[in-house]
Amino acid sequence: MAVTMRDVARHAGVSPKTVSNVMNGYPFIREDTRRRVLDAIEALGYQMNISARNLKSGRTGIIGLAVPELSLPYFAELADAVITAAEQHGLTVMIEQTGAVRDRELAALARPRGHLVDGLLFSPLALGPDDAEHLRTSTPTVLLGERIFHGPVDHVMIDNVTGTRAATEHLLDLGRRRIAVLGTHPGEKVGTAAIRYDAYAAALTDAGIEPLSALAIPAEPWHRSTGAEAMQSLLATGVEFDAVLALNDTLALGALRVLAERGIRVPDDVAVAGFDDIDEARYSMPSLTTVDPGRAQIAATAVDILVGRMNGDDADHREIVAEYALHVRESTTGR
Amino acid sequence: MAVTMRDVARHAGVSPKTVSNVMNGYPFIREDTRRRVLDAIEALGYQMNISARNLKSGRTGIIGLAVPELSLPYFAELADAVITAAEQHGLTVMIEQTGAVRDRELAALARPRGHLVDGLLFSPLALGPDDAEHLRTSTPTVLLGERIFHGPVDHVMIDNVTGTRAATEHLLDLGRRRIAVLGTHPGEKVGTAAIRYDAYAAALTDAGIEPLSALAIPAEPWHRSTGAEAMQSLLATGVEFDAVLALNDTLALGALRVLAERGIRVPDDVAVAGFDDIDEARYSMPSLTTVDPGRAQIAATAVDILVGRMNGDDADHREIVAEYALHVRESTTGR
Repeated sequence: MAVTMRDVARHAGVSPKTVSNVMNGYPFIREDTRRRVLDAIEALGYQMNISARNLKSGRTGIIGLAVPELSLPYFAELADAVITAAEQHGLTVMIEQTGAVRDRELAALARPRGHLVDGLLFSPLALGPDDAEHLRTSTPTVLLGERIFHGPVDHVMIDNVTGTRAATEHLLDLGRRRIAVLGTHPGEKVGTAAIRYDAYAAALTDAGIEPLSALAIPAEPWHRSTGAEAMQSLLATGVEFDAVLALNDTLALGALRVLAERGIRVPDDVAVAGFDDIDEARYSMPSLTTVDPGRAQIAATAVDILVGRMNGDDADHREIVAEYALHVRESTTGR
Repeated sequence: MAVTMRDVARHAGVSPKTVSNVMNGYPFIREDTRRRVLDAIEALGYQMNISARNLKSGRTGIIGLAVPELSLPYFAELADAVITAAEQHGLTVMIEQTGAVRDRELAALARPRGHLVDGLLFSPLALGPDDAEHLRTSTPTVLLGERIFHGPVDHVMIDNVTGTRAATEHLLDLGRRRIAVLGTHPGEKVGTAAIRYDAYAAALTDAGIEPLSALAIPAEPWHRSTGAEAMQSLLATGVEFDAVLALNDTLALGALRVLAERGIRVPDDVAVAGFDDIDEARYSMPSLTTVDPGRAQIAATAVDILVGRMNGDDADHREIVAEYALHVRESTTGR
């Protein structure tokens, strides 16, 4: 007969709940208790049956987080914030990288998560509004940040429009009139690049300034290297500019490096602003003016909603917009 | 009767293997095929039984990666390299962050991975040589990088000793004699900080220079913020120094910022070197001289070994030391 969790508990002299906690990797278990349970599992050759456990408790104690790219600091720091928020609920996070590839984003949703994770936080980059049907999964799912879907699941969003407008208006308030934008995705109608570009263009238009295509430089993906290349392209055209809005911080940091190499003074000659408020933005030379999208709030809110759904909350889906904050630093004001 | 994968395959007009590939998130499946399979799964209400699948195929198509902290760029970039290497084998990677906390590192090993993942890549930071027994798990496990264990599992290691010695000797070759070291962990006898500090001290001693405790500044964890604080502490003591070896790049980048704020010229007054070769090191002002620990090789080798073990390789465990490379940049030579 198969060894049960109860057998393990009896052998270890603990409750079945303690065995379950050890196997789920809960913190705050005394080391000698953990040791006894692990010894009992080994001695009895116990193999937890995930399906049986799911049928009984309905829980694995694990939530999934699917993000486009962990080597982008924004997503690495978001993952860190999600892990911190999940810990408050005693949950472990398993992270999957989708590479912003449509097929892999669909696979992350299609995987039979019911057996692996209790819920999924999903930050899509390649899927668009037309893919909403794919979001109807049996596992509770909450969307994070990067793109505006409407339904059928909860969505905690970055305030891309207002945040980008605030950064652009800050540059305008400094008297800058020829504001280049780095990281556009020409031809894309939806997605973060399009949303942020449109907000930039609207802010210019409202200030009576025509957005110039010569000042909009594509870059994809949004890395330091592509930001550096975009800045080199812009400089190569010889077009005049007195400010740069980079559509994320890593682009801005790559651009800052090129400006320094060319002896172009920041912010005296060119003011530079980014978006994301990654840790690096506080330490770069000069430090980077940027928009904090409210990462900690996004993570905490998303985990709270997900846990609610896992516990049976069946209210209508919610769309929550996180509060952004503009952090003004040396790259625009010199101090 | 329960719906089987064969039923799904018949309904979708594909082979059961194709259904399995779709569910495992394999790339390179035609979109219409994937669509048909997903539709069939939905139409039949199919729920994959992980245990049944494991019994049949022995595989989930997923490997685990446990790292201390994803917001440290080194580990985020390592995760990216592991994901790239795993893709070559058609494997998905699930990442878990242990926070360098002993209990959570043990939990990552103790979790009944046999049902969740086919194998585990594990980068321990809190566990030490005395914990080797915990590494005897039923799931194939390969250790990565950060600490020297000996057995009982395969280990792909960073060449901490030779890499750190090379960086220190580079500073000595530039004529620097008072080389501060940032990021020590006083009292720790094992671990990356101790290994790298000892290699630094040995290089100094071999050059006839006594390592001074006044030049060894503790910092933990190894973040930009703690690097900045360590540099402030060093400056506050008033002790003279003409170079800084930071035990990782993020410490160095925090220190560079403080030096710039104080008007201390790098490298003219103080040469600075780090360890890890994170992407940021190429873009900082000045760019950072650092040791590339061979991240891509570490990831590819570890995944290859793990896949071999998953396929039944039962040779003695291996210890492989990756090739390091010293990248000399502006922070030590000004160009």
